[in-house]
Amino acid sequence: MTPVTDAAAAPEPDYAFDRETAVTARSSGVYSAVISDRWGVPGGNANGGYALSLCLRALRAELAHPDPLAVSMYYQRQVLPGPAEIHVDRGRTGRRLSFGEARLLTGGAEISRVVAAFGDIGALDGPTVVTATAPALPPVQDCIDLLDGAPATGVLQWLDFRYAERPGWHRGTPSGTARAEFWMRFADGRPADALSLPGMVDMAIPAVFEFGHFLSTTIELSVHVRGVPAPGWLACRVWTNHLQDGLHEEDFEIWDSAGTLVAQSRQLAMLIG
Amino acid sequence: MTPVTDAAAAPEPDYAFDRETAVTARSSGVYSAVISDRWGVPGGNANGGYALSLCLRALRAELAHPDPLAVSMYYQRQVLPGPAEIHVDRGRTGRRLSFGEARLLTGGAEISRVVAAFGDIGALDGPTVVTATAPALPPVQDCIDLLDGAPATGVLQWLDFRYAERPGWHRGTPSGTARAEFWMRFADGRPADALSLPGMVDMAIPAVFEFGHFLSTTIELSVHVRGVPAPGWLACRVWTNHLQDGLHEEDFEIWDSAGTLVAQSRQLAMLIG
Repeated sequence: MTPVTDAAAAPEPDYAFDRETAVTARSSGVYSAVISDRWGVPGGNANGGYALSLCLRALRAELAHPDPLAVSMYYQRQVLPGPAEIHVDRGRTGRRLSFGEARLLTGGAEISRVVAAFGDIGALDGPTVVTATAPALPPVQDCIDLLDGAPATGVLQWLDFRYAERPGWHRGTPSGTARAEFWMRFADGRPADALSLPGMVDMAIPAVFEFGHFLSTTIELSVHVRGVPAPGWLACRVWTNHLQDGLHEEDFEIWDSAGTLVAQSRQLAMLIG
Repeated sequence: MTPVTDAAAAPEPDYAFDRETAVTARSSGVYSAVISDRWGVPGGNANGGYALSLCLRALRAELAHPDPLAVSMYYQRQVLPGPAEIHVDRGRTGRRLSFGEARLLTGGAEISRVVAAFGDIGALDGPTVVTATAPALPPVQDCIDLLDGAPATGVLQWLDFRYAERPGWHRGTPSGTARAEFWMRFADGRPADALSLPGMVDMAIPAVFEFGHFLSTTIELSVHVRGVPAPGWLACRVWTNHLQDGLHEEDFEIWDSAGTLVAQSRQLAMLIG
Protein backbone atom coordinates (compact mmCIF):
# COMPACT_ATOMS: atom_id res chain seq x y z
CA MET A 1 0.00 0.00 0.00
CA THR A 2 3.05 2.26 -0.13
CA PRO A 3 2.60 5.03 -2.68
CA VAL A 4 5.53 5.24 -5.02
CA THR A 5 7.39 8.45 -4.36
CA ASP A 6 10.05 10.04 -6.49
CA ALA A 7 12.83 11.65 -4.52
CA ALA A 8 13.59 14.05 -7.36
CA ALA A 9 10.00 15.27 -7.54
CA ALA A 10 9.16 15.60 -3.82
CA PRO A 11 8.07 17.82 -2.23
CA GLU A 12 6.01 19.03 -5.15
CA PRO A 13 2.74 20.83 -5.67
CA ASP A 14 -0.32 18.69 -6.17
CA TYR A 15 -0.36 18.70 -9.97
CA ALA A 16 -3.13 16.79 -11.70
CA PHE A 17 -0.79 14.84 -13.96
CA ASP A 18 1.18 13.45 -11.03
CA ARG A 19 -1.86 12.80 -8.87
CA GLU A 20 -3.76 10.97 -11.59
CA THR A 21 -0.84 8.87 -12.83
CA ALA A 22 0.16 7.69 -9.35
CA VAL A 23 0.90 4.00 -8.99
CA THR A 24 1.13 1.94 -5.81
CA ALA A 25 3.62 -0.90 -5.29
CA ARG A 26 1.84 -4.16 -4.46
CA SER A 27 4.51 -6.81 -4.81
CA SER A 28 7.70 -7.31 -6.73
CA GLY A 29 7.22 -5.58 -10.07
CA VAL A 30 3.46 -5.26 -9.61
CA TYR A 31 1.72 -1.91 -9.21
CA SER A 32 -1.89 -0.91 -8.87
CA ALA A 33 -3.33 2.21 -10.42
CA VAL A 34 -6.63 3.77 -11.35
CA ILE A 35 -7.28 4.71 -14.96
CA SER A 36 -9.01 8.02 -14.45
CA ASP A 37 -12.32 8.84 -16.15
CA ARG A 38 -11.15 12.47 -16.48
CA TRP A 39 -8.48 11.88 -19.14
CA GLY A 40 -10.80 10.53 -21.79
CA VAL A 41 -11.12 10.94 -25.53
CA PRO A 42 -14.31 10.82 -27.61
CA GLY A 43 -15.65 7.27 -27.48
CA GLY A 44 -14.97 6.62 -23.80
CA ASN A 45 -11.36 5.40 -23.88
CA ALA A 46 -8.71 7.03 -21.75
CA ASN A 47 -6.19 9.02 -23.74
CA GLY A 48 -3.34 6.84 -24.94
CA GLY A 49 -0.66 9.23 -23.75
CA TYR A 50 -2.22 9.24 -20.29
CA ALA A 51 -2.19 5.42 -20.23
CA LEU A 52 1.45 5.46 -21.30
CA SER A 53 2.24 7.84 -18.44
CA LEU A 54 0.83 5.39 -15.88
CA CYS A 55 3.17 2.72 -17.23
CA LEU A 56 6.15 5.08 -17.16
CA ARG A 57 5.51 5.83 -13.49
CA ALA A 58 5.78 2.10 -12.72
CA LEU A 59 8.83 1.69 -14.94
CA ARG A 60 10.59 4.62 -13.31
CA ALA A 61 10.02 3.05 -9.91
CA GLU A 62 11.67 -0.19 -11.07
CA LEU A 63 14.52 0.88 -13.34
CA ALA A 64 17.96 2.11 -12.33
CA HIS A 65 17.96 5.20 -14.57
CA PRO A 66 15.57 8.13 -14.12
CA ASP A 67 14.46 9.19 -17.61
CA PRO A 68 12.64 7.45 -20.43
CA LEU A 69 14.84 7.88 -23.54
CA ALA A 70 12.82 5.64 -25.86
CA VAL A 71 9.41 4.11 -25.24
CA SER A 72 7.11 2.09 -27.49
CA MET A 73 3.54 1.29 -26.51
CA TYR A 74 1.32 -1.22 -28.28
CA TYR A 75 -2.41 -0.72 -27.70
CA GLN A 76 -4.06 -4.13 -27.81
CA ARG A 77 -7.46 -3.38 -26.24
CA GLN A 78 -9.52 -0.35 -25.28
CA VAL A 79 -8.16 1.56 -22.30
CA LEU A 80 -11.27 2.06 -20.17
CA PRO A 81 -11.41 3.92 -16.84
CA GLY A 82 -11.23 1.85 -13.69
CA PRO A 83 -8.80 -0.10 -11.53
CA ALA A 84 -5.72 -1.44 -13.27
CA GLU A 85 -2.50 -3.29 -12.62
CA ILE A 86 0.90 -2.67 -14.14
CA HIS A 87 3.38 -5.52 -14.28
CA VAL A 88 6.98 -4.49 -14.82
CA ASP A 89 9.64 -6.80 -16.19
CA ARG A 90 13.18 -5.47 -15.84
CA GLY A 91 15.58 -6.05 -18.70
CA ARG A 92 19.29 -5.38 -18.83
CA THR A 93 20.72 -2.68 -16.58
CA GLY A 94 23.91 -1.15 -17.93
CA ARG A 95 26.00 1.86 -17.09
CA ARG A 96 24.15 4.23 -19.39
CA LEU A 97 20.85 2.46 -20.10
CA SER A 98 18.23 0.38 -18.32
CA PHE A 99 15.65 -1.58 -20.25
CA GLY A 100 12.25 -2.68 -19.10
CA GLU A 101 8.74 -3.58 -20.08
CA ALA A 102 5.39 -2.74 -18.52
CA ARG A 103 2.10 -4.48 -19.16
CA LEU A 104 -1.10 -2.61 -18.34
CA LEU A 105 -3.93 -4.90 -17.26
CA THR A 106 -7.58 -4.31 -16.40
CA GLY A 107 -9.80 -7.13 -15.17
CA GLY A 108 -6.86 -9.49 -15.61
CA ALA A 109 -6.58 -8.80 -19.36
CA GLU A 110 -3.52 -7.16 -20.85
CA ILE A 111 -4.66 -4.01 -22.65
CA SER A 112 -1.31 -2.56 -23.63
CA ARG A 113 2.40 -3.19 -23.46
CA VAL A 114 5.30 -0.75 -23.26
CA VAL A 115 8.96 -1.47 -23.87
CA ALA A 116 11.39 1.23 -22.79
CA ALA A 117 15.01 2.25 -22.55
CA PHE A 118 15.71 4.57 -19.63
CA GLY A 119 18.81 6.69 -19.16
CA ASP A 120 19.95 9.88 -17.49
CA ILE A 121 19.36 12.71 -19.93
CA GLY A 122 21.29 15.22 -17.86
CA ALA A 123 24.35 12.96 -17.86
CA LEU A 124 24.53 12.43 -21.62
CA ASP A 125 27.60 13.75 -23.30
CA GLY A 126 28.71 13.69 -26.88
CA PRO A 127 28.56 15.90 -29.94
CA THR A 128 25.55 17.96 -30.99
CA VAL A 129 24.65 18.81 -34.59
CA VAL A 130 21.11 20.02 -35.32
CA THR A 131 19.89 20.75 -38.84
CA ALA A 132 16.17 21.29 -38.21
CA THR A 133 14.38 24.30 -36.79
CA ALA A 134 11.77 24.84 -34.13
CA PRO A 135 8.19 25.75 -35.08
CA ALA A 136 8.00 29.39 -36.19
CA LEU A 137 5.19 30.54 -33.90
CA PRO A 138 4.18 34.07 -32.94
CA PRO A 139 4.54 34.90 -29.24
CA VAL A 140 2.02 33.03 -27.08
CA GLN A 141 0.10 36.20 -26.27
CA ASP A 142 -0.50 36.79 -29.99
CA CYS A 143 -1.91 33.29 -30.50
CA ILE A 144 -5.47 32.08 -30.09
CA ASP A 145 -7.17 29.63 -27.76
CA LEU A 146 -9.50 27.50 -29.90
CA LEU A 147 -11.82 27.11 -26.93
CA ASP A 148 -12.64 30.84 -26.81
CA GLY A 149 -13.08 30.50 -23.05
CA ALA A 150 -15.37 27.44 -23.15
CA PRO A 151 -14.50 24.62 -20.73
CA ALA A 152 -12.56 21.69 -22.17
CA THR A 153 -13.42 18.11 -21.33
CA GLY A 154 -11.49 14.87 -21.05
CA VAL A 155 -7.76 14.95 -21.58
CA LEU A 156 -7.91 18.43 -23.14
CA GLN A 157 -8.99 20.00 -19.81
CA TRP A 158 -5.51 19.45 -18.36
CA LEU A 159 -3.65 21.31 -21.09
CA ASP A 160 -3.51 24.77 -22.61
CA PHE A 161 -3.07 25.18 -26.37
CA ARG A 162 -2.44 28.31 -28.41
CA TYR A 163 -2.53 28.36 -32.21
CA ALA A 164 -1.18 31.00 -34.58
CA GLU A 165 -4.41 30.72 -36.53
CA ARG A 166 -7.65 28.80 -36.38
CA PRO A 167 -7.17 25.41 -38.09
CA GLY A 168 -9.32 24.54 -41.09
CA TRP A 169 -11.08 21.66 -39.33
CA HIS A 170 -12.11 24.07 -36.55
CA ARG A 171 -13.78 26.36 -39.09
CA GLY A 172 -15.57 23.35 -40.58
CA THR A 173 -13.34 23.18 -43.64
CA PRO A 174 -10.49 20.66 -43.19
CA SER A 175 -7.60 21.94 -45.27
CA GLY A 176 -6.36 18.63 -46.69
CA THR A 177 -2.91 19.38 -45.26
CA ALA A 178 -2.51 17.53 -41.99
CA ARG A 179 0.09 19.70 -40.33
CA ALA A 180 -0.14 22.11 -37.40
CA GLU A 181 2.14 24.08 -35.11
CA PHE A 182 0.99 25.34 -31.72
CA TRP A 183 1.99 26.12 -28.15
CA MET A 184 1.19 23.64 -25.36
CA ARG A 185 1.57 23.43 -21.58
CA PHE A 186 -0.08 21.82 -18.57
CA ALA A 187 -3.00 24.03 -17.51
CA ASP A 188 -2.15 23.83 -13.79
CA GLY A 189 1.44 24.96 -14.26
CA ARG A 190 3.10 21.56 -13.94
CA PRO A 191 6.48 21.83 -15.66
CA ALA A 192 6.98 19.39 -18.51
CA ASP A 193 9.74 16.89 -17.82
CA ALA A 194 11.18 13.70 -19.25
CA LEU A 195 8.46 11.66 -17.57
CA SER A 196 5.54 13.67 -18.94
CA LEU A 197 6.80 14.33 -22.48
CA PRO A 198 6.10 10.82 -23.85
CA GLY A 199 2.44 11.13 -22.90
CA MET A 200 2.12 14.75 -24.02
CA VAL A 201 2.89 13.86 -27.65
CA ASP A 202 -0.47 12.08 -27.72
CA MET A 203 -2.57 14.68 -25.86
CA ALA A 204 -3.18 17.29 -28.59
CA ILE A 205 -5.62 17.50 -31.51
CA PRO A 206 -4.70 14.86 -34.11
CA ALA A 207 -3.30 16.13 -37.40
CA VAL A 208 -5.63 13.82 -39.34
CA PHE A 209 -8.54 16.16 -38.47
CA GLU A 210 -7.34 18.22 -41.45
CA PHE A 211 -8.11 15.25 -43.71
CA GLY A 212 -11.69 15.41 -42.41
CA HIS A 213 -11.34 12.30 -40.23
CA PHE A 214 -12.07 12.78 -36.55
CA LEU A 215 -11.83 9.33 -35.00
CA SER A 216 -8.87 7.02 -35.07
CA THR A 217 -7.32 4.61 -32.61
CA THR A 218 -3.63 4.20 -31.91
CA ILE A 219 -2.02 0.84 -32.64
CA GLU A 220 1.52 1.79 -31.70
CA LEU A 221 3.23 4.89 -30.31
CA SER A 222 7.00 5.35 -30.02
CA VAL A 223 8.59 8.36 -28.39
CA HIS A 224 12.17 9.55 -27.96
CA VAL A 225 12.87 12.05 -25.21
CA ARG A 226 15.75 14.14 -26.53
CA GLY A 227 16.24 16.75 -23.85
CA VAL A 228 15.18 18.14 -20.49
CA PRO A 229 12.74 20.96 -21.30
CA ALA A 230 13.54 24.49 -20.23
CA PRO A 231 10.70 26.18 -18.30
CA GLY A 232 7.87 27.71 -20.30
CA TRP A 233 5.48 26.91 -23.08
CA LEU A 234 6.33 24.07 -25.48
CA ALA A 235 6.34 24.66 -29.24
CA CYS A 236 4.74 21.65 -30.94
CA ARG A 237 4.54 20.40 -34.50
CA VAL A 238 2.22 17.59 -35.56
CA TRP A 239 1.74 16.10 -39.01
CA THR A 240 0.38 13.17 -41.00
CA ASN A 241 1.59 12.65 -44.56
CA HIS A 242 0.24 9.21 -45.32
CA LEU A 243 -3.29 7.99 -44.75
CA GLN A 244 -3.16 4.70 -46.67
CA ASP A 245 -6.06 2.23 -46.67
CA GLY A 246 -7.36 3.60 -43.38
CA LEU A 247 -4.03 3.56 -41.53
CA HIS A 248 -2.03 6.70 -40.85
CA GLU A 249 1.11 7.77 -39.07
CA GLU A 250 1.21 10.82 -36.82
CA ASP A 251 4.51 12.53 -36.21
CA PHE A 252 4.90 14.87 -33.26
CA GLU A 253 7.75 17.11 -32.12
CA ILE A 254 8.00 19.09 -28.91
CA TRP A 255 10.53 21.92 -28.72
CA ASP A 256 11.20 23.80 -25.50
CA SER A 257 11.26 27.55 -24.93
CA ALA A 258 15.02 27.62 -25.54
CA GLY A 259 14.55 26.18 -29.05
CA THR A 260 15.73 22.62 -28.32
CA LEU A 261 13.91 19.54 -29.56
CA VAL A 262 12.92 17.67 -26.39
CA ALA A 263 10.61 14.96 -27.73
CA GLN A 264 9.99 13.29 -31.07
CA SER A 265 7.35 10.66 -31.71
CA ARG A 266 5.49 8.69 -34.32
CA GLN A 267 2.37 6.62 -33.97
CA LEU A 268 0.50 4.28 -36.29
CA ALA A 269 -3.26 4.68 -36.01
CA MET A 270 -6.35 3.27 -37.67
CA LEU A 271 -9.42 5.28 -38.64
CA ILE A 272 -12.59 4.16 -36.88
CA GLY A 273 -15.93 3.85 -38.60
CA MET B 1 13.51 -29.97 -35.75
CA THR B 2 10.82 -29.00 -38.21
CA PRO B 3 11.86 -25.99 -40.26
CA VAL B 4 9.22 -23.31 -40.23
CA THR B 5 7.73 -23.03 -43.70
CA ASP B 6 5.54 -20.28 -45.02
CA ALA B 7 2.79 -21.48 -47.32
CA ALA B 8 2.59 -18.11 -49.05
CA ALA B 9 6.30 -18.07 -49.85
CA ALA B 10 6.85 -21.72 -50.83
CA PRO B 11 8.09 -23.01 -53.18
CA GLU B 12 10.59 -20.21 -53.48
CA PRO B 13 14.13 -19.78 -54.78
CA ASP B 14 16.91 -20.13 -52.28
CA TYR B 15 17.35 -16.46 -51.44
CA ALA B 16 20.03 -15.52 -48.93
CA PHE B 17 17.70 -13.44 -46.77
CA ASP B 18 15.27 -16.33 -46.29
CA ARG B 19 17.97 -18.95 -45.83
CA GLU B 20 19.89 -16.92 -43.25
CA THR B 21 16.87 -15.79 -41.24
CA ALA B 22 15.37 -19.29 -40.98
CA VAL B 23 14.13 -20.30 -37.54
CA THR B 24 13.32 -23.81 -36.29
CA ALA B 25 10.46 -24.57 -33.90
CA ARG B 26 11.71 -26.28 -30.74
CA SER B 27 8.77 -26.17 -28.37
CA SER B 28 5.75 -24.01 -27.78
CA GLY B 29 6.80 -20.46 -28.67
CA VAL B 30 10.50 -21.33 -28.71
CA TYR B 31 12.60 -21.23 -31.86
CA SER B 32 16.25 -21.82 -32.53
CA ALA B 33 18.22 -19.85 -35.07
CA VAL B 34 21.77 -19.04 -36.02
CA ILE B 35 22.92 -15.44 -36.07
CA SER B 36 25.00 -15.46 -39.22
CA ASP B 37 28.53 -14.06 -39.31
CA ARG B 38 27.88 -12.84 -42.86
CA TRP B 39 25.43 -10.02 -41.99
CA GLY B 40 27.81 -8.03 -39.85
CA VAL B 41 28.58 -4.37 -39.39
CA PRO B 42 31.93 -2.80 -38.48
CA GLY B 43 32.79 -3.83 -34.93
CA GLY B 44 31.63 -7.43 -35.19
CA ASN B 45 27.94 -7.16 -34.36
CA ALA B 46 25.31 -8.54 -36.67
CA ASN B 47 23.27 -5.86 -38.42
CA GLY B 48 20.29 -4.78 -36.33
CA GLY B 49 17.85 -5.13 -39.20
CA TYR B 50 19.04 -8.66 -39.80
CA ALA B 51 18.51 -9.51 -36.12
CA LEU B 52 15.04 -7.99 -36.30
CA SER B 53 14.27 -10.18 -39.32
CA LEU B 54 15.09 -13.34 -37.35
CA CYS B 55 12.58 -12.29 -34.70
CA LEU B 56 9.93 -11.49 -37.32
CA ARG B 57 10.29 -14.98 -38.80
CA ALA B 58 9.46 -16.46 -35.39
CA LEU B 59 6.63 -14.00 -34.79
CA ARG B 60 5.11 -14.75 -38.18
CA ALA B 61 5.12 -18.45 -37.35
CA GLU B 62 3.20 -17.79 -34.14
CA LEU B 63 0.74 -15.01 -34.96
CA ALA B 64 -2.59 -15.30 -36.74
CA HIS B 65 -1.97 -12.49 -39.23
CA PRO B 66 0.72 -12.62 -41.91
CA ASP B 67 2.31 -9.15 -42.06
CA PRO B 68 4.17 -6.98 -39.57
CA LEU B 69 2.37 -3.62 -39.52
CA ALA B 70 4.31 -2.09 -36.63
CA VAL B 71 7.41 -3.45 -34.93
CA SER B 72 9.66 -1.99 -32.23
CA MET B 73 12.97 -3.56 -31.33
CA TYR B 74 15.03 -2.65 -28.27
CA TYR B 75 18.72 -3.59 -28.49
CA GLN B 76 19.92 -4.41 -25.00
CA ARG B 77 23.19 -6.19 -25.72
CA GLN B 78 25.54 -6.76 -28.65
CA VAL B 79 24.13 -9.07 -31.31
CA LEU B 80 27.06 -11.44 -31.94
CA PRO B 81 27.08 -14.29 -34.48
CA GLY B 82 26.31 -17.76 -33.19
CA PRO B 83 23.45 -19.95 -32.02
CA ALA B 84 20.41 -18.14 -30.67
CA GLU B 85 16.93 -18.76 -29.35
CA ILE B 86 13.82 -16.71 -29.96
CA HIS B 87 11.02 -16.86 -27.42
CA VAL B 88 7.65 -15.66 -28.66
CA ASP B 89 4.87 -14.48 -26.39
CA ARG B 90 1.52 -14.07 -28.11
CA GLY B 91 -0.64 -11.10 -27.17
CA ARG B 92 -4.20 -10.38 -28.16
CA THR B 93 -5.49 -11.82 -31.43
CA GLY B 94 -8.31 -9.79 -32.95
CA ARG B 95 -10.08 -9.73 -36.27
CA ARG B 96 -7.70 -7.24 -37.87
CA LEU B 97 -4.61 -7.32 -35.65
CA SER B 98 -2.47 -9.81 -33.76
CA PHE B 99 0.02 -8.68 -31.16
CA GLY B 100 3.12 -10.46 -30.00
CA GLU B 101 6.57 -10.16 -28.56
CA ALA B 102 9.82 -11.91 -29.36
CA ARG B 103 12.92 -12.07 -27.21
CA LEU B 104 16.24 -12.90 -28.87
CA LEU B 105 18.63 -14.78 -26.60
CA THR B 106 22.21 -15.94 -26.98
CA GLY B 107 23.92 -18.01 -24.29
CA GLY B 108 20.77 -17.70 -22.20
CA ALA B 109 20.96 -13.89 -22.07
CA GLU B 110 18.29 -11.70 -23.66
CA ILE B 111 19.99 -9.45 -26.18
CA SER B 112 16.98 -7.78 -27.73
CA ARG B 113 13.22 -7.61 -27.54
CA VAL B 114 10.65 -6.91 -30.23
CA VAL B 115 7.00 -6.00 -29.77
CA ALA B 116 4.85 -6.16 -32.88
CA ALA B 117 1.38 -5.73 -34.30
CA PHE B 118 0.69 -8.00 -37.26
CA GLY B 119 -2.16 -7.62 -39.75
CA ASP B 120 -3.05 -8.42 -43.33
CA ILE B 121 -1.85 -5.54 -45.46
CA GLY B 122 -3.63 -6.77 -48.56
CA ALA B 123 -6.94 -6.87 -46.68
CA LEU B 124 -6.80 -3.31 -45.35
CA ASP B 125 -9.50 -1.00 -46.58
CA GLY B 126 -10.22 2.61 -45.85
CA PRO B 127 -9.48 6.01 -47.30
CA THR B 128 -6.14 7.07 -48.74
CA VAL B 129 -4.77 10.62 -48.69
CA VAL B 130 -1.05 11.12 -49.32
CA THR B 131 0.60 14.54 -49.14
CA ALA B 132 4.28 13.56 -49.40
CA THR B 133 6.26 12.58 -52.45
CA ALA B 134 8.65 9.77 -53.30
CA PRO B 135 12.37 10.44 -53.62
CA ALA B 136 13.15 12.24 -56.87
CA LEU B 137 15.83 9.92 -58.21
CA PRO B 138 17.19 9.58 -61.74
CA PRO B 139 16.55 6.21 -63.39
CA VAL B 140 18.58 3.41 -61.81
CA GLN B 141 20.81 3.04 -64.87
CA ASP B 142 21.83 6.69 -64.56
CA CYS B 143 22.84 6.28 -60.91
CA ILE B 144 26.15 5.16 -59.45
CA ASP B 145 27.28 2.19 -57.42
CA LEU B 146 29.51 3.51 -54.66
CA LEU B 147 31.46 0.25 -54.69
CA ASP B 148 32.74 0.80 -58.24
CA GLY B 149 32.75 -2.97 -58.69
CA ALA B 150 34.62 -3.80 -55.48
CA PRO B 151 33.16 -6.61 -53.37
CA ALA B 152 31.02 -5.58 -50.42
CA THR B 153 31.32 -7.25 -47.03
CA GLY B 154 28.97 -7.96 -44.15
CA VAL B 155 25.36 -6.93 -44.50
CA LEU B 156 26.11 -4.72 -47.50
CA GLN B 157 27.04 -7.75 -49.64
CA TRP B 158 23.38 -8.83 -49.79
CA LEU B 159 22.06 -5.57 -51.19
CA ASP B 160 22.52 -3.35 -54.22
CA PHE B 161 22.52 0.44 -53.83
CA ARG B 162 22.51 3.15 -56.48
CA TYR B 163 23.01 6.84 -55.68
CA ALA B 164 22.26 9.85 -57.85
CA GLU B 165 25.62 11.27 -56.82
CA ARG B 166 28.55 10.31 -54.66
CA PRO B 167 27.82 11.33 -51.03
CA GLY B 168 30.13 13.76 -49.30
CA TRP B 169 31.32 11.23 -46.71
CA HIS B 170 32.36 8.91 -49.56
CA ARG B 171 34.56 11.63 -51.05
CA GLY B 172 36.09 12.22 -47.61
CA THR B 173 34.18 15.45 -47.01
CA PRO B 174 31.01 14.85 -44.95
CA SER B 175 28.54 17.49 -46.03
CA GLY B 176 27.03 18.35 -42.65
CA THR B 177 23.58 17.57 -44.03
CA ALA B 178 22.62 14.05 -43.00
CA ARG B 179 20.15 13.22 -45.75
CA ALA B 180 20.38 10.87 -48.70
CA GLU B 181 18.16 9.35 -51.36
CA PHE B 182 19.10 6.17 -53.22
CA TRP B 183 17.84 3.01 -54.86
CA MET B 184 18.04 -0.32 -53.01
CA ARG B 185 17.23 -3.98 -53.67
CA PHE B 186 18.35 -7.43 -52.61
CA ALA B 187 21.40 -8.38 -54.69
CA ASP B 188 20.16 -11.91 -55.40
CA GLY B 189 16.82 -10.76 -56.75
CA ARG B 190 14.70 -11.57 -53.70
CA PRO B 191 11.60 -9.42 -53.93
CA ALA B 192 11.07 -7.10 -50.99
CA ASP B 193 7.96 -7.94 -49.00
CA ALA B 194 6.27 -7.04 -45.74
CA LEU B 195 8.52 -9.43 -43.85
CA SER B 196 11.81 -8.07 -45.20
CA LEU B 197 11.01 -4.33 -45.19
CA PRO B 198 11.41 -3.82 -41.40
CA GLY B 199 14.94 -5.15 -41.55
CA MET B 200 15.83 -3.36 -44.77
CA VAL B 201 15.34 0.08 -43.18
CA ASP B 202 18.44 -0.65 -41.09
CA MET B 203 20.65 -2.19 -43.81
CA ALA B 204 21.84 0.93 -45.68
CA ILE B 205 24.58 3.47 -44.98
CA PRO B 206 23.61 5.57 -41.94
CA ALA B 207 22.74 9.21 -42.57
CA VAL B 208 24.94 10.32 -39.67
CA PHE B 209 28.02 9.57 -41.83
CA GLU B 210 27.40 13.04 -43.29
CA PHE B 211 28.02 14.53 -39.84
CA GLY B 212 31.44 12.83 -39.91
CA HIS B 213 30.47 10.11 -37.42
CA PHE B 214 30.87 6.56 -38.63
CA LEU B 215 30.04 4.37 -35.65
CA SER B 216 26.82 4.34 -33.70
CA THR B 217 24.74 1.65 -32.07
CA THR B 218 20.97 1.36 -32.21
CA ILE B 219 19.04 1.58 -28.94
CA GLU B 220 15.56 1.32 -30.44
CA LEU B 221 14.13 0.84 -33.94
CA SER B 222 10.44 1.13 -34.82
CA VAL B 223 9.09 0.39 -38.28
CA HIS B 224 5.67 0.68 -39.89
CA VAL B 225 5.01 -1.38 -42.99
CA ARG B 226 2.59 0.70 -45.02
CA GLY B 227 2.13 -1.31 -48.20
CA VAL B 228 3.03 -4.40 -50.19
CA PRO B 229 5.87 -3.34 -52.48
CA ALA B 230 5.43 -3.55 -56.24
CA PRO B 231 8.26 -5.43 -58.00
CA GLY B 232 11.44 -3.53 -58.74
CA TRP B 233 13.98 -1.28 -57.10
CA LEU B 234 13.03 0.55 -53.92
CA ALA B 235 13.46 4.31 -53.65
CA CYS B 236 14.84 5.13 -50.21
CA ARG B 237 15.26 8.30 -48.18
CA VAL B 238 17.28 8.45 -44.97
CA TRP B 239 17.95 11.41 -42.71
CA THR B 240 19.10 12.55 -39.29
CA ASN B 241 18.21 16.05 -38.13
CA HIS B 242 19.18 15.90 -34.48
CA LEU B 243 22.44 14.64 -33.07
CA GLN B 244 22.10 15.84 -29.46
CA ASP B 245 24.63 14.94 -26.76
CA GLY B 246 25.76 11.88 -28.70
CA LEU B 247 22.27 10.50 -29.40
CA HIS B 248 20.63 10.75 -32.81
CA GLU B 249 17.50 9.65 -34.55
CA GLU B 250 17.56 8.13 -38.02
CA ASP B 251 14.44 8.31 -40.16
CA PHE B 252 14.06 5.99 -43.13
CA GLU B 253 11.42 5.72 -45.83
CA ILE B 254 11.09 3.05 -48.49
CA TRP B 255 8.93 3.77 -51.55
CA ASP B 256 8.18 1.13 -54.15
CA SER B 257 8.55 1.35 -57.93
CA ALA B 258 4.92 2.45 -58.23
CA GLY B 259 5.57 5.50 -56.01
CA THR B 260 3.87 4.19 -52.85
CA LEU B 261 5.40 4.52 -49.40
CA VAL B 262 5.80 0.94 -48.18
CA ALA B 263 7.86 1.38 -45.02
CA GLN B 264 8.61 4.18 -42.60
CA SER B 265 10.95 3.93 -39.64
CA ARG B 266 12.81 5.81 -36.96
CA GLN B 267 15.57 4.64 -34.71
CA LEU B 268 17.37 6.15 -31.73
CA ALA B 269 21.09 5.47 -31.80
CA MET B 270 24.13 6.40 -29.75
CA LEU B 271 27.52 7.36 -31.16
CA ILE B 272 30.32 5.02 -30.14
CA GLY B 273 33.75 6.19 -29.12
